[in-house]
Amino acid sequence: MHSTQVVTYGAHRRSASRLTIFAHLFGILAFILMLVWLLHYRGGIEYGSYDSFRVFNVHPFLMFCGFIFLSGEAMMAYKTVQAKHIVQKVVHMILQLMAFVLGVVGICAVFKFHDMAGIEDVYSLHSWIGIATISLFALQWLAGLSTYMFPQTDVTRTAVLPWHVCHGRTLLYMSIAAALTGLMEKATFLNLRHGHETRLINIIGLSILLFGIFVDLSVALARYV
Amino acid sequence: MHSTQVVTYGAHRRSASRLTIFAHLFGILAFILMLVWLLHYRGGIEYGSYDSFRVFNVHPFLMFCGFIFLSGEAMMAYKTVQAKHIVQKVVHMILQLMAFVLGVVGICAVFKFHDMAGIEDVYSLHSWIGIATISLFALQWLAGLSTYMFPQTDVTRTAVLPWHVCHGRTLLYMSIAAALTGLMEKATFLNLRHGHETRLINIIGLSILLFGIFVDLSVALARYV
Repeated sequence: MHSTQVVTYGAHRRSASRLTIFAHLFGILAFILMLVWLLHYRGGIEYGSYDSFRVFNVHPFLMFCGFIFLSGEAMMAYKTVQAKHIVQKVVHMILQLMAFVLGVVGICAVFKFHDMAGIEDVYSLHSWIGIATISLFALQWLAGLSTYMFPQTDVTRTAVLPWHVCHGRTLLYMSIAAALTGLMEKATFLNLRHGHETRLINIIGLSILLFGIFVDLSVALARYV
Repeated sequence: MHSTQVVTYGAHRRSASRLTIFAHLFGILAFILMLVWLLHYRGGIEYGSYDSFRVFNVHPFLMFCGFIFLSGEAMMAYKTVQAKHIVQKVVHMILQLMAFVLGVVGICAVFKFHDMAGIEDVYSLHSWIGIATISLFALQWLAGLSTYMFPQTDVTRTAVLPWHVCHGRTLLYMSIAAALTGLMEKATFLNLRHGHETRLINIIGLSILLFGIFVDLSVALARYV
């Protein structure tokens, strides 16, 4: 029975590694298509521009290519960084911090756009989910720092780990939900129904969703090892 | 060391039970608020109506109150149904089947609405995510039926379980993403920005998201027991 379990777990380890590759691929696909969308269809990305729409475009760019992409890569650091455990932990922490900082700049961009265009802040479901996500993300990062980077007993660290892992996953899916509602709001607002741009936005949305799903599956199945 | 682990796992078991209660509460809250929204603000729910908007309202009602709510409850059946394992399995299977059937009727309602109102089908990100979700849900149900209801070796069932659990969770989050993009599309399309209805839709969206998160946490943390 014991040997059977070892074989089974080995199969999950191999599958989890393949899933990590899919996560990277969908992440990079969404990254590239997001750039194509913003640069080719939406007039470019520039925080200091006088054109309010170029300022707005900083928001989707940094929220996915900064916040979600780096955060997902940070979650997979224990699989992708072939180094000592402490190095993996530091890479995980630094990537999550970079994700947070870029996320905050991305949110500042949309507030700046609202100021320039005279639009009210934080009224939509997208904005409510987004604000909740980045706030809880900051708390999760601080909780992770105090538990795993400052001196703690192994008992505490082991007890906190399932919470840290599960909360991290829910935050990943919350950020995906924020991204998809954001794309949906933008597409509906632009009254896009036909043509290349609609399909491009849909493919970006599905790629972001698949990135999140494969990050989750890759991390979750690896824990069955 | 062994006793420490038992204490830790016991704590997760208790926490998981409390999380299940939160899942039920947010599910019921979203259920009630969805009814308030559709009956009070949107003119009612009726599949056979000549008013296309009453036909449309069947869609959000059945997709959350039928598909997502029953599917989430089915995932928690192993915790909420205090009976033999085989009874829990049958309840899980039947609830998932009911969720699927109501989901299909809900999708038929929106196709009927599109026919009545002369709107094109399946162009939005919401519709792409929704169609993908219900299709994969059917495959997952059939795979679960053949693995856990038909004769199989315990080795096969144990090997498939992590996949069944992880795919189930990703389908839950996909259905939540479909619901939130749907609410976002509707709110943007109605050009709602102020007033009670906007806030009601946002609170319905957050309640649906919290229902999904607490179902996930409840099921995931229970597995650390």
